[in-house]
Amino acid sequence: MKIGVLGTGMVGGTLASKLVSLGHEVRMGAREPDNPKAKAWAESAGHGASAGDFAAAAKFGEIVLSCTLGEKSVEALQAAGKENLRGKVVIDVSNPLDFSRGMPPRVSTGPAGESLGEQIQQAFPEARVVKALNTVNAAVMVDPRRAGGESDLFLCGNDAGAKKTVTDLLKQLGWTRIHDVGDIRAARGTEAYLLFWLALRSAFQTADFNVRIVLRES
Amino acid sequence: MKIGVLGTGMVGGTLASKLVSLGHEVRMGAREPDNPKAKAWAESAGHGASAGDFAAAAKFGEIVLSCTLGEKSVEALQAAGKENLRGKVVIDVSNPLDFSRGMPPRVSTGPAGESLGEQIQQAFPEARVVKALNTVNAAVMVDPRRAGGESDLFLCGNDAGAKKTVTDLLKQLGWTRIHDVGDIRAARGTEAYLLFWLALRSAFQTADFNVRIVLRES
Repeated sequence: MKIGVLGTGMVGGTLASKLVSLGHEVRMGAREPDNPKAKAWAESAGHGASAGDFAAAAKFGEIVLSCTLGEKSVEALQAAGKENLRGKVVIDVSNPLDFSRGMPPRVSTGPAGESLGEQIQQAFPEARVVKALNTVNAAVMVDPRRAGGESDLFLCGNDAGAKKTVTDLLKQLGWTRIHDVGDIRAARGTEAYLLFWLALRSAFQTADFNVRIVLRES
Repeated sequence: MKIGVLGTGMVGGTLASKLVSLGHEVRMGAREPDNPKAKAWAESAGHGASAGDFAAAAKFGEIVLSCTLGEKSVEALQAAGKENLRGKVVIDVSNPLDFSRGMPPRVSTGPAGESLGEQIQQAFPEARVVKALNTVNAAVMVDPRRAGGESDLFLCGNDAGAKKTVTDLLKQLGWTRIHDVGDIRAARGTEAYLLFWLALRSAFQTADFNVRIVLRES
């Protein structure tokens, strides 16, 4: 598939490289069209990798991964352009962490507690937003066994078809236990989870962990 | 042991009854000394059960369980009295959920993002506050296997001795996998987790679940 990845950081780079290795065509997008990190990535990532600005990456992708910092995500998607996101599956990977008042950070929400996923869906009503992958470290996102065993991933969104598309992509990344936890409002839960994740990372002194749901089948 | 349980709701009642069944002496505390729910509980729960107001329960207990609604916890502990909490292990079981703006609720925090656990420790500096049990439903708190398999519980607090005492009590409740996730600030994580828990409960249509950590041992 053709996939646009917005963001040149650890998360965007890790996902983009893995997707290229799986045979997808991936365009990494940055704020500036000649962003050196994006260009260097495209040159080193091999066949199928290219770089451009946010709009070029979004236009290129049948699926768009939003991997910018949470506090900049809506702005980056605006730069990508509504017309380039229309009807597309947008996977919101980012977490709206606010470090402005020190550690541990807060999770930013909208005035009524809206998650970033909801805010993106609201700002781009014609995009099919799915929140996913934000509950694990970048290295675990693309190598689930790195956590040390089979563990679980969570996705949510309003569009069943989009969630199916994302589930297929997650399976390609190696995920076997994927939970659809509801419409995009459930992102309030999977984003708030990050504070729990940060506490665990601090306690375990590693980011190579995840959770597995234990559920009594009725 | 002598244990004071503040709160007459589902959580307080479930924990108090289980603790009595384990052979502890338990005094359930309510705002009013003649609270009918507390009195009825004490009459039905058997040998070792008694009831009183918050202060009577706190004074009675070597360990005090704070099981009131999160938004009322500090007030209830104030009614219990600083002098009755001094030096004692206070297990903060409650979650500061704010339903005032509809569902899903928000998690209330202090102005800098402080958890309820931190606020209680701050208000009662001579108490030894441990946040625990707030990440599972009342029925699972006292019967961990109800979740469907071995799963994990998390505690945090500033006092190592208090955490040891709470760990021993949790083992009596049936918990085998208990993680000390740090000082009381880690309660920001275990309280924020509730929004994740609520999303899962909604998706799974049951409260009989929990998480198990998958962690790569280095």
